[in-house]
Amino acid sequence: MITDTTQHPADSIENLIQSMSLREKIGQTVQLGLNSRFCNEETLERHLEEFPVGSVFCGGEIITSAEGKSAALREKLARAQRASKYPLLVAGDLESGAGQAVADKTRFPMLLSLAACRDEKMAYEYGKYTALEGREAGFNWTFAPVVDVQKNWLNPIVTNRGLGDDPQRVAALAGAIIEGMQDHGFAACAKHFPGDGVDFRDQHLITSVNSLTEEEWWEVHGGVFQSVIDRGVRTIMPGHIALPWCDSFRSSSGRPRPATLSEPILTQLLRERMGFEGVLVTDALIMAGFVGFASRSERLLQAFAAGNDVMLWPENDYYSLMERAIEEGRVSTERLEASVRRILTLKQQLGLLDAADAAEQFAPIEEDSEVRRQAVDLSARVADESITLVRNRENLLPLNSDRARSVLLHSAIPEQADSRYIDLLAETLEARGLEVTRHKNGNCLDVNKMEQEGKHWDAYLVVYSLQIHQMKNAVRPVGELGEVQWAQQYAETMKPITISLNTAYLTFDNPYLDTLVNAYSPCPTVIDALVRALFGELPFDGQSPVDLETIPERTGFLG
Amino acid sequence: MITDTTQHPADSIENLIQSMSLREKIGQTVQLGLNSRFCNEETLERHLEEFPVGSVFCGGEIITSAEGKSAALREKLARAQRASKYPLLVAGDLESGAGQAVADKTRFPMLLSLAACRDEKMAYEYGKYTALEGREAGFNWTFAPVVDVQKNWLNPIVTNRGLGDDPQRVAALAGAIIEGMQDHGFAACAKHFPGDGVDFRDQHLITSVNSLTEEEWWEVHGGVFQSVIDRGVRTIMPGHIALPWCDSFRSSSGRPRPATLSEPILTQLLRERMGFEGVLVTDALIMAGFVGFASRSERLLQAFAAGNDVMLWPENDYYSLMERAIEEGRVSTERLEASVRRILTLKQQLGLLDAADAAEQFAPIEEDSEVRRQAVDLSARVADESITLVRNRENLLPLNSDRARSVLLHSAIPEQADSRYIDLLAETLEARGLEVTRHKNGNCLDVNKMEQEGKHWDAYLVVYSLQIHQMKNAVRPVGELGEVQWAQQYAETMKPITISLNTAYLTFDNPYLDTLVNAYSPCPTVIDALVRALFGELPFDGQSPVDLETIPERTGFLG
Repeated sequence: MITDTTQHPADSIENLIQSMSLREKIGQTVQLGLNSRFCNEETLERHLEEFPVGSVFCGGEIITSAEGKSAALREKLARAQRASKYPLLVAGDLESGAGQAVADKTRFPMLLSLAACRDEKMAYEYGKYTALEGREAGFNWTFAPVVDVQKNWLNPIVTNRGLGDDPQRVAALAGAIIEGMQDHGFAACAKHFPGDGVDFRDQHLITSVNSLTEEEWWEVHGGVFQSVIDRGVRTIMPGHIALPWCDSFRSSSGRPRPATLSEPILTQLLRERMGFEGVLVTDALIMAGFVGFASRSERLLQAFAAGNDVMLWPENDYYSLMERAIEEGRVSTERLEASVRRILTLKQQLGLLDAADAAEQFAPIEEDSEVRRQAVDLSARVADESITLVRNRENLLPLNSDRARSVLLHSAIPEQADSRYIDLLAETLEARGLEVTRHKNGNCLDVNKMEQEGKHWDAYLVVYSLQIHQMKNAVRPVGELGEVQWAQQYAETMKPITISLNTAYLTFDNPYLDTLVNAYSPCPTVIDALVRALFGELPFDGQSPVDLETIPERTGFLG
Repeated sequence: MITDTTQHPADSIENLIQSMSLREKIGQTVQLGLNSRFCNEETLERHLEEFPVGSVFCGGEIITSAEGKSAALREKLARAQRASKYPLLVAGDLESGAGQAVADKTRFPMLLSLAACRDEKMAYEYGKYTALEGREAGFNWTFAPVVDVQKNWLNPIVTNRGLGDDPQRVAALAGAIIEGMQDHGFAACAKHFPGDGVDFRDQHLITSVNSLTEEEWWEVHGGVFQSVIDRGVRTIMPGHIALPWCDSFRSSSGRPRPATLSEPILTQLLRERMGFEGVLVTDALIMAGFVGFASRSERLLQAFAAGNDVMLWPENDYYSLMERAIEEGRVSTERLEASVRRILTLKQQLGLLDAADAAEQFAPIEEDSEVRRQAVDLSARVADESITLVRNRENLLPLNSDRARSVLLHSAIPEQADSRYIDLLAETLEARGLEVTRHKNGNCLDVNKMEQEGKHWDAYLVVYSLQIHQMKNAVRPVGELGEVQWAQQYAETMKPITISLNTAYLTFDNPYLDTLVNAYSPCPTVIDALVRALFGELPFDGQSPVDLETIPERTGFLG
């Protein structure tokens, strides 16, 4: 890494651009997925020599190879920085704290939990500690927060990754998170422009559509994005989402052009009309929402031409494609340099072009630091204030610690899904001295059979943990989970206390739940808060971040 | 079985009623699920002595114990008839031919295939051969046809079990099926009153709601039911479906009262206003759509009081409950006898009260009978005329037999689901000399990787087989199937030919499919017809029985 401040002073971005070869400039617009192939330092060095990049992405794979320890990850990233001629932006999906990416950092409850607290100060801290812990692990950029607005309860992207359905609340909380991040040396990224949450479909699986009218859009997503732009968000991620009022172009298959490929959406609307001057980074280019247009090489050039600065994980032929496009005049040098300038400006803002700061970023950190203590405390506070008592019609809650000594814990969770938070819930209950009987999914008649056999528990907890935001289209209790919904109603003597560990919308599938707690997040601090709330040791302070009043009985009705 | 015509002549139903004990009258209103517990003749005899019944239901379990052979099943049913003092109605879910219930009878394509043929004569035969083959196996009553109207594409009940979304077409085809059945010694059953297909939810899992206004309802479900009543349908099955315009009562949990419990819906609307004089048989009483009201015993009495004649699988205490209710005057003898009268009238219509007919029903049948030949021929004709070419924008179809020699068969089917029809498709292609490579679900990048490795096939078939109408809420490509939708779009060189073996609505999740064949039914004759149609040996004669023109992009949108 070049850190000589006389050669690259923070105020001489133009000199830096002029010193770059064409390939180096193109490389600035590339974000490399730092997967296991690059765990070997030599391989990475060789790769960067031929294919220089401006940024790297750390996803699950390399973090796994780092065994979840941020010290090891930081070491790898330091090597990557050394292997790169220019300092690298290091990005990750740190949507709910650095602990989402690195095991020894703090996991925060999902954004929907934060939204249930309705506390902007807490949102600022959420951003702050994500940044401070993220930087300790070597990150300087997070693709967060999700600022989408859940206008459609079937939308599979926003779910508990987002801040709910109210545009004003989303804007206020997202703005605070962004400031918390950016005040502490991080680049935030508002996603997914022009706003997810309208379509029932998933951008991973298809080009989705934000079908709001121009007027509606400005009131919802437009308003949110304008607000975070005005509050200085440094980067925005366009999604593979169409916005027909702004760009009505359709391919021969009738596919509407997604934002990632749309000059009207990215340049005319977002840059020129809304005044966004920061970095635009595409959502992943392998997603099905992107791949329906033209040939792969044509798509790549179109995406760049549309206004993106950083391409998320293009294949290696992107370099030669861009070189040829510049040569042939299909992409101008000015356009390329404009993107490089925005990327270098971001690096400058983050102190990456300044030797002293770059060094500081990799300074040793203490194991049990004050930052860590504060982050853990914040995670607990968000959890404590988020647990929402949606219904308590039978006054079953809170449970009485003296009388409720045995629990039937009926989990509704897809067979192949990670059940660690259900396990943690069981352990937490057992640690209180409760006798816990566990039952997973099963047959619709199971609980009724148990009752007929004379079995009884003091409390019957039914805990739903859906597989959401995993390209599963599964924001409702589908498959085995449907039988749990059946079974809990078929209980004769036991009254179910229903708990959701993610979706806020269980009442749309079962409007007749008498007792429902929305906990929003599979997260250790949430499990802890949930149990205390169930036993009356913590007030149910959360307020639903989505409207649950009107059951949308005609969902899917064709009129 | 008592078959002495002097004692029970067909014209002396009143004498028969008067000769019955109270318990025998109550028994007439009970339908017993003939599960494996009753495969032992002695057990059944002892049971019927204490708990006499009017009808039995043969579902999957006892048919399995009969090893799928109708001769063995008939033998068991003959024993049941002998064990019963009064002749039994024998019911089953023969929705798509007797082959749906008994392996050596003929399986017809699902009703949605029949609807794609738009041929009332064929619908009549569909009913006729279901009856003739069903009677050979010992049945005299089928809970079919489904006459619901698919007004909601997310509705999980109607799907390919129903006749589509057009009320006039549903009425015309359903009426023909019913006449075909009833002209040939069978009782048909129109289900599910007051009409499923409006809600996105499943009556198995929750009380669902037909939220049409009174005017809308008469145009849709009301019109269909009135039409089949006027054409003489002998039985109707109320579903656990509310109809707020007709009955606005709600339980303390806010649960709307389903038809199965509603006197306004069953007696005032269906009997008095619509003039239905036949037998009302409840949908299964264990379904969650039913179990939310009052205590189990209260519910049972309420369901009877509402107007039902036959209770589907009540537990044994139903007898003592009813005896006490009669004693206490909560149910009148007149009301009970009215139901018994309707049930005996049905038996009389079916010739069950007449010794000669009852004997004929169990007459030996030939292995390769004319009936069987006609049924097989009908199944093939329905299949041949139903295959629907929804899109052929790239003119990929029909395939050229000389040039298309290798096929990548990519199946989209839940891991645990029955894949026998995908296997059959592969075998049928191989039997034509094609080289078939199979790929199941997998990763979104799989096909793209194969292409990058230089692999190529002359045709790329993507075959969706969803798990629908199985209480799974899964009428869309959820779970692993989402990745297939992704993978097929990410193919670079191969153009997918998409085939659906059940749902007609794949274009709602993926509106940009260029090539789509809707085959509607996992059924041997459909697989055969599908392959011939793909290779141009059969015209694509099917017409979509549901409207696919307007993609409902705002499904789930909360406004």
